[in-house]
Amino acid sequence: MHTEFEIETRGPRLYEFTQDVAAWLRDCGAVSGLLTLMVRHTSASLLIQENADADVQRDLHAYFARLVPPADRPEMTYLTHTAEGPDDMPAHIKAAMLPVSLHIPVIDGHMRLGTWQGIYLFEHRTAPHRRRAAGHFMSDRA
Amino acid sequence: MHTEFEIETRGPRLYEFTQDVAAWLRDCGAVSGLLTLMVRHTSASLLIQENADADVQRDLHAYFARLVPPADRPEMTYLTHTAEGPDDMPAHIKAAMLPVSLHIPVIDGHMRLGTWQGIYLFEHRTAPHRRRAAGHFMSDRA
Amino acid sequence: MHTEFEIETRGPRLYEFTQDVAAWLRDCGAVSGLLTLMVRHTSASLLIQENADADVQRDLHAYFARLVPPADRPEMTYLTHTAEGPDDMPAHIKAAMLPVSLHIPVIDGHMRLGTWQGIYLFEHRTAPHRRRAAGHFMSDRA
Repeated sequence: MHTEFEIETRGPRLYEFTQDVAAWLRDCGAVSGLLTLMVRHTSASLLIQENADADVQRDLHAYFARLVPPADRPEMTYLTHTAEGPDDMPAHIKAAMLPVSLHIPVIDGHMRLGTWQGIYLFEHRTAPHRRRAAGHFMSDRA
Repeated sequence: MHTEFEIETRGPRLYEFTQDVAAWLRDCGAVSGLLTLMVRHTSASLLIQENADADVQRDLHAYFARLVPPADRPEMTYLTHTAEGPDDMPAHIKAAMLPVSLHIPVIDGHMRLGTWQGIYLFEHRTAPHRRRAAGHFMSDRA
Repeated sequence: MHTEFEIETRGPRLYEFTQDVAAWLRDCGAVSGLLTLMVRHTSASLLIQENADADVQRDLHAYFARLVPPADRPEMTYLTHTAEGPDDMPAHIKAAMLPVSLHIPVIDGHMRLGTWQGIYLFEHRTAPHRRRAAGHFMSDRA
């Protein structure tokens, strides 16, 4: 059972798609097994994070924007891959630090997420993008 | 084959639970397949790290404590999610940077860890917590 | 279906081995399922990153070398695990921040990587090493 999720982004921040994933698991009759999500880009990440307070998502973006400043900032002049804009190489760096893929055990058709855990795509680029995440569910053996 | 590991924590540091995982694999007669562990919290991480020298674990904690200072420090005043204490938002940030889940191939009933690799929960909060990690083993197909 | 990939390294940088993985999937007749790669060391990482422009790989190395300086630098004197050289503890720190394992859905015998995604071992140590990554492919159930 394979699928692909599309997430439209408009600038760097977190985009939740927990419900899309839950709906797909329902549609394909998933009962017990392992869910894998993998982002098919090297300038965006996947994240399991708190979905209770939107401040958490804003602060996550604010922190990583400071940890990896744009390539046109004085302290980042050592970067050489700058042809695609000052936000491109920092996006690759964040994509290396943050998860490419997520893996969630499924029991009785439900993802075993904690109470406050949601599934996000973390966009690192400034321009709008259409992002794709491969989805895969493998059933436990009978 | 699903389970849940409980790890009691008393402050931010690494807690090894390699032996609990090995014992569970033995108990359920796992032979060949893929083990998945997923922490069900957004303020703690899982880590595969060196278990030979405890200094490694102390240094890991020391490094990340400096990379992501408490929210009441002058350089962190841009954080807004501070109602749950100065260690809360830094814990979410560390949980974004460090692994949510671990995945270890199993052959002949043994995890294919390297010689010095151990499995840890990395607690990021100051107060004691009871942490839960979902465990899942999927057998290879015959 | 289990294997082990060997990657010879000569200093800290990214080493691509996408083609080795693709060849192994072909050799074992993999059709549809989930590929897992896990590095069996705590001072090297695995990475899915852009393989179009080698500058991206150089910049990734340059960034992480600055984020985690050698242990003999003034700002790193708090590190205690220094017996194995100034590059050892920083290597463990980078190995904690960057992926231990990669997971790629496979359809029709092909990894579902994005257009520009390649598979790399990221060596963090200065001395030459022979690195091992466990490979595992699990077929979807019929």
